[in-house]
Amino acid sequence: MDKRIRCSELESKIVSAEEAALLVKDGMVVGASGFTPAGYPKAVPLAIAERAENGEKLGITLITGASVGDELDGALARAGVVRKRYPYQTNKSMRDSINAGEIAYADMHLSHVPQWIKYGYFGNIDVAIVEAVAITEDGGIVPSTSIGNSNVLVDMADVVIVEINTSQPESLEGIHDIYSPANPPHRKPIPVLNPEDRIGTTYIPCDPEKIKAIVYSDITDKTRGVTPIDEDSKKVSKFIIDFLKDEIKAGRMPEKLLPLQSGVGSVANAILGGLCESDFENLNIYSEVLQDSVLDLIDCGKVDVASATSLTISPERLDDFYENFDKYRDKIILRPQEISNNPEVIRRLGVIAMNTAIEFDIYGNVNSTNVNGVRMMNGIGGSGDFARNAYLTIFITMSTAKNGTLSSVVPFVKHVDHTEHDVHVVVTEQGIADLRGLSPKEKAITIIENCVHPDFKEELMEYYENSLKESSHLHTPHDLSKVFAKKEAAKAD
Amino acid sequence: MDKRIRCSELESKIVSAEEAALLVKDGMVVGASGFTPAGYPKAVPLAIAERAENGEKLGITLITGASVGDELDGALARAGVVRKRYPYQTNKSMRDSINAGEIAYADMHLSHVPQWIKYGYFGNIDVAIVEAVAITEDGGIVPSTSIGNSNVLVDMADVVIVEINTSQPESLEGIHDIYSPANPPHRKPIPVLNPEDRIGTTYIPCDPEKIKAIVYSDITDKTRGVTPIDEDSKKVSKFIIDFLKDEIKAGRMPEKLLPLQSGVGSVANAILGGLCESDFENLNIYSEVLQDSVLDLIDCGKVDVASATSLTISPERLDDFYENFDKYRDKIILRPQEISNNPEVIRRLGVIAMNTAIEFDIYGNVNSTNVNGVRMMNGIGGSGDFARNAYLTIFITMSTAKNGTLSSVVPFVKHVDHTEHDVHVVVTEQGIADLRGLSPKEKAITIIENCVHPDFKEELMEYYENSLKESSHLHTPHDLSKVFAKKEAAKAD
Repeated sequence: MDKRIRCSELESKIVSAEEAALLVKDGMVVGASGFTPAGYPKAVPLAIAERAENGEKLGITLITGASVGDELDGALARAGVVRKRYPYQTNKSMRDSINAGEIAYADMHLSHVPQWIKYGYFGNIDVAIVEAVAITEDGGIVPSTSIGNSNVLVDMADVVIVEINTSQPESLEGIHDIYSPANPPHRKPIPVLNPEDRIGTTYIPCDPEKIKAIVYSDITDKTRGVTPIDEDSKKVSKFIIDFLKDEIKAGRMPEKLLPLQSGVGSVANAILGGLCESDFENLNIYSEVLQDSVLDLIDCGKVDVASATSLTISPERLDDFYENFDKYRDKIILRPQEISNNPEVIRRLGVIAMNTAIEFDIYGNVNSTNVNGVRMMNGIGGSGDFARNAYLTIFITMSTAKNGTLSSVVPFVKHVDHTEHDVHVVVTEQGIADLRGLSPKEKAITIIENCVHPDFKEELMEYYENSLKESSHLHTPHDLSKVFAKKEAAKAD
Repeated sequence: MDKRIRCSELESKIVSAEEAALLVKDGMVVGASGFTPAGYPKAVPLAIAERAENGEKLGITLITGASVGDELDGALARAGVVRKRYPYQTNKSMRDSINAGEIAYADMHLSHVPQWIKYGYFGNIDVAIVEAVAITEDGGIVPSTSIGNSNVLVDMADVVIVEINTSQPESLEGIHDIYSPANPPHRKPIPVLNPEDRIGTTYIPCDPEKIKAIVYSDITDKTRGVTPIDEDSKKVSKFIIDFLKDEIKAGRMPEKLLPLQSGVGSVANAILGGLCESDFENLNIYSEVLQDSVLDLIDCGKVDVASATSLTISPERLDDFYENFDKYRDKIILRPQEISNNPEVIRRLGVIAMNTAIEFDIYGNVNSTNVNGVRMMNGIGGSGDFARNAYLTIFITMSTAKNGTLSSVVPFVKHVDHTEHDVHVVVTEQGIADLRGLSPKEKAITIIENCVHPDFKEELMEYYENSLKESSHLHTPHDLSKVFAKKEAAKAD
């Protein structure tokens, strides 16, 4: 027997992906592992998609941790298998189907999902499909490169399918820390007092009886490549680092800062990467996703510990990462998203939250999800979990979009994901605006002066000044008849 | 010596309100007690206002717990003393000055304020003015009918002024529970595991050296009267009670429910009041404000414990309340707003949050603050603290405004305070819409069918159906060129 399956009574459950896929039936609610394309099941979803492509009527509700790779979201969306989708996605086929109105997608705070599963708000979870690197003697499931909602899905599902992925090294065992709070009124404090605190098990406890199929797979995580760090990202990174230094000088931040959270993508990666050249030492990360830059920060000795729920290393960096895994092992902790994104822990630790926006407005409201207010990009993800509860909340966007033809700072965002009440600091490659304690009018002036591209400054200042003249009230002056007036804007893409 | 001042070294600090007021100087940051007009200082603010009215140049930043009465917000606003105001207000003069653009007001989540004070985000706190019923042997300040930010303001201020209010009975001593978490990275779990848990002291610890003036006052709290419960409020209350009963049946809620939070005002009061005629038993309240209806619920034996940061009993009910105080004493706990509104505690306890909206839109976004998007009403208050972190989040509004001429359900709210990601259930006197797990399009249909007044159903359905045709994308269909098109809407009021 493969030492990846250490529970002898489960040997008989090893089946083909096709056979396992038959456990999923039309109308079911299916939960899957996977967070920001890492650690998602691949072989079984492909086999499910194939059934539908062969003409079988098959529609499911799909709940994951966050975004997953093309073998899951892409294949199932193209095969028309997904009727409802929670809580986050980044796959092109999935996004297209959502924007075509074919898939009912609900875009949720990631920290809300595990408790919604446990409260029963999604109904019964029929099947959980979880990628793993091993199964312990007692049936415990050792996750691969992410945890997400896997522990909660396994706990609540009637049936569990495990995909043992041999492309994911067994050496990952030990970096996970699985813990789940009870539901109210029995919930106790979550005992994470520092980013490095371990409070649970290294595997997802599971009654072996529930595991109805085990499938082998060797399909690799389709993580995204990281684009080279461009000049604009470097500028943003420098603005933030200088700002944090000033916070230390003002006595508002400890010398070693507070735990850092950074969103996903190339800009977020670049911002963290910029810390390599800073004077900061002994930094901690308390985030949802660890990208390449965190490895750089560990390499250069800047980071003592990095906690998240997903490890999404670029394809270019992956071999090197696993070859030198011993260097990183003790510095990385993966937690369920119920803990990584938990408001209790985020507020207690005093996280510095840095997330990207599609656009923000002159009063500090942020659109993170819908281009032009109607085209769903990805979703809010964990940005709201961190932004609302962080010690310091920073939103980042480049000042223009569409090759400089559109301003990313606007009079009124076309979709609000983070309200003025939740946004402390906004940054573009033009500059940084500290909004803390400012009234709306003071925010408008500061944002226009510091963050807007020169091509659009005049236009925005004109809107603001005209609103001061036209608005019936002067706390948050607006001339709302103008903000969405251009029909073409809503139709553009 | 009056037994209200039990610290002998403080006897010499008793001065007139006029003398105490001189401690406040032009340009200072002044913190004051008071939350949802209860427990705010009165005599000293009136004396400060008088100085300005006599021609003295005097401008301050004013930070309170939440809204305060006319002797503070009203008098100071009319005298032109307030330059900046945080974090919430309901006073007519204050509101008028804010909407006239004369006072820079920042509308904040109430749970954020105490930590902002402690982080230094507001700068140095020069003076704290705190209403009290007594001072202990060691200088500890026993608050009156609210705590709000008083403990944090006293801790951070250079100078403390205490207003001993003899209209507030000494018997209030003992109902307070003062506790404040450390700043990150030293913050520990807050040990409130049940609404009745007491974790701190019954007074605000204070070095007697810091108390520079003690003033006697007998001016009563100017709490608001409670209007009789009308038929529409009764309908809303019944919709919510029936909904909660169904949640119990579905196994999603314990028989005795989970701790209840209810916003401020007549509708909120009516909703809680409706529970008197329900079958529920042994209810708990974990809220920010306790109004008359909580006394009714204690009277009828429905509520075991009620925790909040303010006790705002209507003038009509106040004498009876104090006469029968022994009946209520053991069932009421007042906490700092840092604890009553803390996301950690709210999520742990699994609070059922019920807050009122000005308007909500067909996709479930809520406007709580700005009429027509530009006229500041009060502020977000604690609604965001509770809505984001509650077990169940309910928003309530009557389906029409302006004598039935305007729909409170609109295509796109003119100001967003609570996003679609934060709103589980919306209710009007027309009906209730359970939005949990729905996609935006499903939300639109459910809201229009259940919550909209018959006079406006057709219009909203037409907007929605037209958007389905016109929108370039169909996840959250919108025709944004139409939503704010009417110029008069922005100018109306």
